[in-house]
Amino acid sequence: MYQTNEKKVPISFSIRTDLAIEARELAQQNAQEADQLKGVDVNTTEDSDYFLTHVHIHSEEGSRLMGKPKGDYITLESEKLKENDVECHEKIIKVLAENIRSLVKFGEDDCILVAGLGNWNITPDALGPKVVSKILVTRHLQGTLPEEIEKTVRPVAAVSPGVMGITGIETGEILKGIVDKLQPSLLIAIDALAARRSNRINAAIQMSNTGVAPGAGVGNKRMMLDKESLGIPVIAIGVPTVVDAATLVNDTMDRILGEMMQQTETGSAFYQTLQSLEQEEKYQMIADILGPYTGNMFVTPKEVDAVVDRLANIIANAINIAIHPGVTMADINKYVW
Amino acid sequence: MYQTNEKKVPISFSIRTDLAIEARELAQQNAQEADQLKGVDVNTTEDSDYFLTHVHIHSEEGSRLMGKPKGDYITLESEKLKENDVECHEKIIKVLAENIRSLVKFGEDDCILVAGLGNWNITPDALGPKVVSKILVTRHLQGTLPEEIEKTVRPVAAVSPGVMGITGIETGEILKGIVDKLQPSLLIAIDALAARRSNRINAAIQMSNTGVAPGAGVGNKRMMLDKESLGIPVIAIGVPTVVDAATLVNDTMDRILGEMMQQTETGSAFYQTLQSLEQEEKYQMIADILGPYTGNMFVTPKEVDAVVDRLANIIANAINIAIHPGVTMADINKYVW
Amino acid sequence: MYQTNEKKVPISFSIRTDLAIEARELAQQNAQEADQLKGVDVNTTEDSDYFLTHVHIHSEEGSRLMGKPKGDYITLESEKLKENDVECHEKIIKVLAENIRSLVKFGEDDCILVAGLGNWNITPDALGPKVVSKILVTRHLQGTLPEEIEKTVRPVAAVSPGVMGITGIETGEILKGIVDKLQPSLLIAIDALAARRSNRINAAIQMSNTGVAPGAGVGNKRMMLDKESLGIPVIAIGVPTVVDAATLVNDTMDRILGEMMQQTETGSAFYQTLQSLEQEEKYQMIADILGPYTGNMFVTPKEVDAVVDRLANIIANAINIAIHPGVTMADINKYVW
Amino acid sequence: MYQTNEKKVPISFSIRTDLAIEARELAQQNAQEADQLKGVDVNTTEDSDYFLTHVHIHSEEGSRLMGKPKGDYITLESEKLKENDVECHEKIIKVLAENIRSLVKFGEDDCILVAGLGNWNITPDALGPKVVSKILVTRHLQGTLPEEIEKTVRPVAAVSPGVMGITGIETGEILKGIVDKLQPSLLIAIDALAARRSNRINAAIQMSNTGVAPGAGVGNKRMMLDKESLGIPVIAIGVPTVVDAATLVNDTMDRILGEMMQQTETGSAFYQTLQSLEQEEKYQMIADILGPYTGNMFVTPKEVDAVVDRLANIIANAINIAIHPGVTMADINKYVW
Repeated sequence: MYQTNEKKVPISFSIRTDLAIEARELAQQNAQEADQLKGVDVNTTEDSDYFLTHVHIHSEEGSRLMGKPKGDYITLESEKLKENDVECHEKIIKVLAENIRSLVKFGEDDCILVAGLGNWNITPDALGPKVVSKILVTRHLQGTLPEEIEKTVRPVAAVSPGVMGITGIETGEILKGIVDKLQPSLLIAIDALAARRSNRINAAIQMSNTGVAPGAGVGNKRMMLDKESLGIPVIAIGVPTVVDAATLVNDTMDRILGEMMQQTETGSAFYQTLQSLEQEEKYQMIADILGPYTGNMFVTPKEVDAVVDRLANIIANAINIAIHPGVTMADINKYVW
Repeated sequence: MYQTNEKKVPISFSIRTDLAIEARELAQQNAQEADQLKGVDVNTTEDSDYFLTHVHIHSEEGSRLMGKPKGDYITLESEKLKENDVECHEKIIKVLAENIRSLVKFGEDDCILVAGLGNWNITPDALGPKVVSKILVTRHLQGTLPEEIEKTVRPVAAVSPGVMGITGIETGEILKGIVDKLQPSLLIAIDALAARRSNRINAAIQMSNTGVAPGAGVGNKRMMLDKESLGIPVIAIGVPTVVDAATLVNDTMDRILGEMMQQTETGSAFYQTLQSLEQEEKYQMIADILGPYTGNMFVTPKEVDAVVDRLANIIANAINIAIHPGVTMADINKYVW
Repeated sequence: MYQTNEKKVPISFSIRTDLAIEARELAQQNAQEADQLKGVDVNTTEDSDYFLTHVHIHSEEGSRLMGKPKGDYITLESEKLKENDVECHEKIIKVLAENIRSLVKFGEDDCILVAGLGNWNITPDALGPKVVSKILVTRHLQGTLPEEIEKTVRPVAAVSPGVMGITGIETGEILKGIVDKLQPSLLIAIDALAARRSNRINAAIQMSNTGVAPGAGVGNKRMMLDKESLGIPVIAIGVPTVVDAATLVNDTMDRILGEMMQQTETGSAFYQTLQSLEQEEKYQMIADILGPYTGNMFVTPKEVDAVVDRLANIIANAINIAIHPGVTMADINKYVW
Repeated sequence: MYQTNEKKVPISFSIRTDLAIEARELAQQNAQEADQLKGVDVNTTEDSDYFLTHVHIHSEEGSRLMGKPKGDYITLESEKLKENDVECHEKIIKVLAENIRSLVKFGEDDCILVAGLGNWNITPDALGPKVVSKILVTRHLQGTLPEEIEKTVRPVAAVSPGVMGITGIETGEILKGIVDKLQPSLLIAIDALAARRSNRINAAIQMSNTGVAPGAGVGNKRMMLDKESLGIPVIAIGVPTVVDAATLVNDTMDRILGEMMQQTETGSAFYQTLQSLEQEEKYQMIADILGPYTGNMFVTPKEVDAVVDRLANIIANAINIAIHPGVTMADINKYVW
């Protein structure tokens, strides 16, 4: 529906979302056969408290249709992520830890580098740095710990490289420099993402093994962080914390017009006119009307500080359990101060 | 244009804005005679760096048309407020200080209470508390200062009462308790406001002598703080720092359809259908589509932290100069650390 | 030992500590009969994880000897307060909640005001405001909650009034204004305290029903907050978070000389000379040598931010459990975000 | 006076200070000939507002006597650094900028990396990260700026690498990784230092061209950052923000005993006993008495947050002026938000 002229509008534009589940929804709408996307497998698990979707892109065609690299994308969705429900969060931490471990195989003594992407000065973009501040860091303790404790923890280092506007350096350059010096076996990168729908904000956590383009949530996409660029596997963990203002208006208008068209006959001709516009033209018109300052605007909930703190806690607990052999569900919140 | 049925839709709804200049724009659209609102005088001053509008509501009819209490509303608009332009900001500080002094007459030794309204945990709502942290507070020093210094400063106290969700107490109750105990001669209240247009965000400062309803920017309106409720005159200083998401979509859609109607004939019938909807119905439809969580969403620029800090600085400097006899333009930034 | 001439040096000086257990140690040293202080009862409870001392001052003489008002002072001491020991902290929260409830009797529907004293800009003084931010505040929800929830919570309000240097207003004046307006049945005030010994820093929590003089920890003592000044009972909860630099030097020197005297004969004559100095003279000499800026110095541990956060959590959990009928040990950390 | 047995106690211990001016005072006391240290030249400049000392260590013997590498150490001392004196600070910024430029010669287009050492979670250790947040960063803008602006700025990048306890990685390792990747021509490193005397806290700024051992102020010294380890010249800028508690007691006791010895005959024998103790023994005895937790304590002024902010501003302004060809005294505070 969105995509009227595939040659003119590159697929990567029309699927302007960081979430594989949203890319799939959009790609589905574009697909001739509504029921299936070639090269894309989808498995879902439902629980009373969350919904888990595993999207596996296994062919070049699937990758092209989805506008995303080949690999695994696991998304946990739960409205409870926005609330302060301790028991439900423990359940989610357990599921996240298991899925993080499933994405990449790593040895018990491998050194892991955890990187918190994003700008710590912009609340909804500060998720990554906040997670990093709660990771149980142990690389510097190797050799100084008693043997029985040493075997419960692997060497873990953690950095928040900042964003280019703050450092003058691409996030990828800083991480490449550190990875080359430290030689870890795996990078786990946490980043804030952008969603298309405001009801997904802070209500989904996506884990993937395909790398990450820093700054997706707030700002422009940068050099890809993946096995190709860094030489080591990358697990990316992301949460949609914002919707950009023009996308919100665009999508809301599409839905409002769709609804009105069904209700009013006079609307349908006009609706078709609107439909006949290229997606990019329409987006641009909205952005123009919103004004030059609006490209800079995002939509975020009032309680974003508290919610981002909570999400950082959940993700940090899940990572600590996933990566340290001796950290278990009994240690929740032990290292997150 | 907005208002089709005045009996059904209360004026206070259709003019959902904290800015007198926006209320005037909207009221103007509603008025039969486009050129003039009865009981409302408007004076404007233009400078290369800013635009100053003085709205004086002097009759009950003007108050009803505008949806605002009688009195003076002075708004300084400048795109430069969003930028780091030191010289321009000095010019603006001077104009603000003069206008603050013009709103209420106060004696040289009168004690003034400055109150920073809003929630310090929500960045765009933290403007008031930030200003308060930069006010030159002197009430506790009375009697301990050398005489030549004592006469350069008046007794000034400053508090940030928090918001009801944090304290369990109405802002008005806390301030009433403190005012009754301290007996100051004037309250200056600083608050974040909501605007209708995203390009007004962080680009306007409104000063008035009619009181303020705390929490206008983010959250529900509360008990009015004014001479009637507190027993002393109130100067309110506000900056629009957010637009609520549904308002943004609503206004953008109106403008986009208006533009399209002129371009396409097929659109006009549909447009009239859309127009025939009650304003409130349309708003509600948008809010429904945006989802239950959206009432909670606001639109704000990425660099909101830096901009709010800057605005707090400008306003605190202006207040310090306006209220302390011996603080002048030469003392800019001296007390704002 | 400290006190050589009771007439010259007022007892209030020589017992410069906020902790009743330290006042008792000092008073004990001053007392002729080493074994007992008249009018002061002491009970202690020992657990593997903490040490609990209940000092009950029940006569004017006891009050004079201790330099503290009549009433109950319960102190929990534990080195574990400095560590991240979740299980031990739960045990401590339980003991604190029980003891808070034992200090003042209050009805199930009484409104309670919680006040976080201290300066939020000075980390070791920010304990009170941090506790307040974690209190389950419900006063504004009365009448809006479902009945079965309503009976699990009492009306609770919470404020952080700031310090005089920030507001220009005595803490007592602000609280008096709010108490007069709100008419709560009880004030619970949390404040950072000063200790005499660096090993007590962040390792003790004192609860009392005798009121509190705000700013004891960092800064000068102010107007007493107690039943006499406010008209309602006051529970004060305090943690020693700092030692002032001159006190640290003074006490360390006393102990070092005491130790050396036992080791060296030549020292004893000199030591007696030093002993013959008035306590106040010696303190003044040290303060002079430390320099004019030193009165302003305090001694605090490096990890003070993390420790104060943790202590705020423990105390807030204990208060929430102590005051809300339906909040139990199962709700630990539920409201402290 | 301090050093009784040079063979037993390594010089590096007895001169436990980061400030060359303090090292010189101590070395002077140790020296046989009171008037001169071999291999160390000292020049001083006095102004009404500050005192400037240039220590130039030009021989191995000077380096050994001072316990510091060969090179230049320029220290600006001013009590005004603790105050909010805008005019005086402008004067100091000018002097700092000139002296930074004098320490290392660099070409107009050379890329410079600015590194803020220290732990952002510990206020007195956060100086470096705070300076970095105020540096005009331009490396990422090269090629995108208009030519006339491009020539006013050199490529500058800036990072805050964190401390080992936070990242699990030595500061030197992170910086080595980034330097190898970026290949800048110069590193400017800002760090908090430890002083011996509490009256030097926040009242001195030291600049040197000899490298820096991160974590000197709060925590253990680490791998040296200098031309040898990084391959590029290093300018280190440091401010003493803390005194460790045991050093404070030690030095105060020495001074108090020195004073008393002159006043009392009985003291002199004892004083000599105390004097006969090895410096290290005495320090250890004090540390033992202060208790195990005390090694972790530091002495810092109450208003440390405000003072560190102010110092970061002054230093950032000085660096911006020193390194960017087109940034001048007229641009003070333009980039420090």
